This record gives sequence, structure tokens and C-alpha cells, in this order.
Amino acid sequence: MKDAEPMYIPTFDDVIAAHDRIRPYIHRTPVLTSSYFNTLTGAELFFKCENFQKAGAFKVRGASNAVFGLSDELAEKGVATHSSGNHALSLSYAAGRRGIPCNVVMPRTAPEAKKAAVRGYGGIITECEPSTSSREEVFAKVQAETGSEFVHPYNDPRVIAGQGTCSREFMEQMQDLGGPVDIIVAPIGGGGMISGTCLTLSKIAPDIQIIAAEPEQADDAYRSFKAGHIIADDAPVTIADGLKVPLKELTWHFVSNHLTDILTASEQEIIDAMKLTWQRMKIVMEASCAVPLATILKNKERFAGKRVGVIITGGNVDLDTLPWMKT
Amino acid sequence: MKDAEPMYIPTFDDVIAAHDRIRPYIHRTPVLTSSYFNTLTGAELFFKCENFQKAGAFKVRGASNAVFGLSDELAEKGVATHSSGNHALSLSYAAGRRGIPCNVVMPRTAPEAKKAAVRGYGGIITECEPSTSSREEVFAKVQAETGSEFVHPYNDPRVIAGQGTCSREFMEQMQDLGGPVDIIVAPIGGGGMISGTCLTLSKIAPDIQIIAAEPEQADDAYRSFKAGHIIADDAPVTIADGLKVPLKELTWHFVSNHLTDILTASEQEIIDAMKLTWQRMKIVMEASCAVPLATILKNKERFAGKRVGVIITGGNVDLDTLPWMKT
Repeated sequence: MKDAEPMYIPTFDDVIAAHDRIRPYIHRTPVLTSSYFNTLTGAELFFKCENFQKAGAFKVRGASNAVFGLSDELAEKGVATHSSGNHALSLSYAAGRRGIPCNVVMPRTAPEAKKAAVRGYGGIITECEPSTSSREEVFAKVQAETGSEFVHPYNDPRVIAGQGTCSREFMEQMQDLGGPVDIIVAPIGGGGMISGTCLTLSKIAPDIQIIAAEPEQADDAYRSFKAGHIIADDAPVTIADGLKVPLKELTWHFVSNHLTDILTASEQEIIDAMKLTWQRMKIVMEASCAVPLATILKNKERFAGKRVGVIITGGNVDLDTLPWMKT
Repeated sequence: MKDAEPMYIPTFDDVIAAHDRIRPYIHRTPVLTSSYFNTLTGAELFFKCENFQKAGAFKVRGASNAVFGLSDELAEKGVATHSSGNHALSLSYAAGRRGIPCNVVMPRTAPEAKKAAVRGYGGIITECEPSTSSREEVFAKVQAETGSEFVHPYNDPRVIAGQGTCSREFMEQMQDLGGPVDIIVAPIGGGGMISGTCLTLSKIAPDIQIIAAEPEQADDAYRSFKAGHIIADDAPVTIADGLKVPLKELTWHFVSNHLTDILTASEQEIIDAMKLTWQRMKIVMEASCAVPLATILKNKERFAGKRVGVIITGGNVDLDTLPWMKT
């Protein structure tokens, strides 16, 4: 798909279709609460725990929707992506469930643990040099050789429709937890989860505020939102490594039309919120998932007295190098 | 209560009464499954996650039963214990909920983090020297001064009846998960959780095998079980620090009468199982809780094809010193 062509904007019907399509391959993840964090924030928090999701992250929703939506003819040639993160794992998992190949282009410098995890889900890795030009060159070659279908980590209507199933499920679960939330907070990187959330909530619960949380050190979405057009940074540095990528055409559509606000947090605030969540909620989650809580803790007055949904996006952490130990 | 008097043996009626008494103060903790661990072990595993329990451990069940079962007259003077672990936290939490004092005698050498956690739940700490004689002396003084009720971490019928509510709840939850398990595996230290499990299951599901899991390096319960009488070790060294204490009269009653078997695991096997659980299940749990999975992994043939319940007993971990980093 070339940037010049206007992309198809997914609708809520696509979310419903995605949900029916992927249900056998995903978990209905639990919603946890914490009286400790309620007391600490003055809000009533509900944590949607996608760290317990298949392949360890919400991204399996979008990846599964893309994989299982392919015609048999297209599927036969497999899928492909370039990613060293949760999208690569998730696409490998989904392709494995369908029994088709998944080609992943990864920098040769990526941690061995990440390569092993992709291979563990059946992904076929082709290494590139750690530069954009090498990645694009190697990826084009892999695609030409295999004819496999490119599934972008977020700038893809099938992926966004898949991510939209998360907040649909969350809102269903809230019916047994005292009714809807007032606000949902989710991290923003490329904007796939936020776009899916906007897509679903703008249709089924348009009164719910949607707030994106972003690291101060990778605040391109924040600056884009304020400026009214996409600003992309080159290689921002943050502990929240899932949130380094920029918005793209399709996610910008949802961010610019439906988002209430973007809040940011410093690296130390993110690390503190991450450690505190592990300590008090006993869950393993990525630094990226701590950004929402970090922004809630530093903007308490905005959330006090409100019912707030927080999306914990993933749990694929390198347990050998935890950020609070890097001192 | 002196050792010379025969202790009251709690009954299943005491478990039912305990459950009614403590329900407002505890979580009904979730049961998690993992297709990864099912594939790895060849068994169907169900994890009862008491790491998500109030105060971070199952021990809040027994402590709450002891605290809320006191007459108003006794309660007024508060409760007391000597412990630097989860029992101290749990008793402090329960006493706080009832609004009565909780006196905890802890060695002055105990980690500041543990003292802070006890104080965080409202416990009043009196420090002793790190020796049994000092602990006993200081504890006797505190009890004499306060008149507070001693609640032993496990050798107490109120505590064991409280712990018995865990497997009752677990078995209720299994009704929605395809029926009862064939085997339950839980860690054994002093034997409080195992005794509660034996008490409940011998009444409501006597066909379920109950297997205790113990560190090789603190295998006093294993040797007691084989010898037919209590063998107590002095200060065993193991990463599973909740499991260092010996059996006592009351827990020996349940271990000797109802337990199917005791299996052991090495330190490295425990650490590996702990890390793997964090990685794959995304839960924070103590080393003690990894002992059951470690014994299942090294005795696969015994568990293959079976439905196995595993009790994850607690999640109060020092996140700054994880055992797989001590190399």
C-alpha cells in the first residue's frame, strides 16, 4: 500500500467482524482492580490486563485479524513484517495458528532473547543491518522472494480493527463491574491501540474520554496532537521501547478526530510506576504499560473521583535487565 | 497455648465458619491457566493465584480468621506475632481492618523494606536481636506489656481453618473449569497451607491427591514424612525463604494423616521455574511458589495427563534482588 493512496478507514463493523474472526485465538483478558492504587490516586481504576494476552501483548488481536482475514490464496504465501517487538511475536503466533509462514526482518543487533522468542512462535527471521535503508532493502527482497503479505504493526486497517476488539471486550466486562468508565487511558506509540480504542468507543460509548499517555522523551504524538499534523522524531530514546515509533496516516486520522488529550511522563516517573505496579499488583508488565499510571499519578486532580480504565498493553519484559536496576 | 496441652484440631465446620467470617476482608483470587505450561508438562495445570491476595499472600486468610474470631474483650488488647514474613504483613492488615493493634517482633537485622511493609499495614514493630533466645525474650515482654493475643504463623487451629478456605474456593472455581482436579500441589514450610488443604479436601474431595513441594535444601518435612515423626532443622538455607520453618504438632497431624507425598526440588530448579513463570504467565510470585512447578517439571511422568491444581502462595518479592540475578 503506497502512502499516496488514501487508506481505507476501518469501521465498527470491521471491529465486530474482527472479534468473531479472532476469538478462538485470543484470551478474554481479566480486568483487575487495586485498592492500593485507588487510595493513592483518588480515582477508581480498572486495569485491562493484555499482558496476560496470547503472545504477551494486545498486538495479537490485530495480527490475528490480519492473518485470519486473508484469502486461502494469499495466506499460502505467508505474511511478513519488520519489527523486533510484540508485533513480530504476535504475527508469528497468528501465522503459526493458521499454519502459514511468517517472515520477520530484524536488525542483526537485536537481542538474542527477542530473536529466540520470535523463533519460538515459529517466525522465520531474516537479519538486516541496524539502519532504515538496510531494513527496507532486505524487507523488499524477502517480500519479492516469498510474495508474502505485509502486515504493518499499526498503520493497517485490519490491525486497527483487531486492536479495537480490546476496548469492546473491556466495556462488556465493565457491565459486571458497576457500569462504564468515565475515562480510558492507554499508551501511545504508533497509535494502533489508541486508534482501535477511538474506533470502538466513538461508536459504542462516545461520552468516554480517551487519553493517550506518552513518554516525555518520545513525545512526538503529543507535539503532533498540539500542532495539528504529524511530527515524526528520529530514534527517540526511552525506557518505554514499544512507544518509540511515530504516528502514521491511519492512526493520525483517529488521534486527530477522536482523542481527548495526550499526557506525558518522565523516564523516572515511568520506572517508578512500573515498579510500584509489579510490587502492589503482582503483575509483570512492560515499561510502556506504566506510562498511563505515571500520567495519572502526576495529574491526580484530573482523575480524582472518576472511574478510569487503564490498558496494560503487554508483558514481554527482559527479566535480566529491569530498569530500576540500571543505576 | 503450651506445647504440653493437646491442641484443638480444626474441622471443616471451622473452615466454613472462617470463610463466612473473612469473606469481606479477602479477595476471591483468580485461577489462571497457561497453554505453554500445559504443553511443557503434559498435564493440565490450574494456578490458584494467592499472590493476588490481600497483603500479597494466602496467609491473610488465617490471620483474618484469627483476628475477626476474637471476642471484643480480647480484641481490644490486640494481637501479636514474631515473623518477618507474610504472616506479619497479613496479621497487621487484618488487625488494621478490625481497628486493633498488631505487635510484631522482628530481628533488627531484617531488611528495612520488610519493616516498612509491616508498618505500611499498621503493624507496630519491636526489634529483637537475630537469635531465638532474644526473640522469645522480647516477645514475652511485649505480650506481658500489651496482653495481646499470640497468633502463631501456622501452628494455630484458627490459622489452619482460615488457610482451608483457599482450597474450598479453588474447588468451587473448578466447577466452572471442567470439574475437579486429580492432584493439588502446594509448597510446604511450616505446613499451614498444606494442613488447610488437607482439612478441606479430606472432607469435600477425598479422592484428590495432595502433594507438598519442598526445597531440597530445607527438606525437613520430606524427611519427617518418611521417618514418621517431626524432624526440625536449624536454619536451613534456601532461596524459598517462606519455607525454612519446621512442622509443628498441629500441622504434623494433617501431614501425617492426609498427605499423599512430598516432592523436592533443587535451588536451581526453583529459580528456573520461578523465572519461567514470570516470563510466561506474567505474574510476580515468590520463590516459594515456584517449588510446586519445579517438582512437576522434574516428575513429569507422575503428572502427565492429569488435571493438576497448583497453589501460588504469595507475591511479596524484593524486586531489587531477584534470584536469577545473583550470579
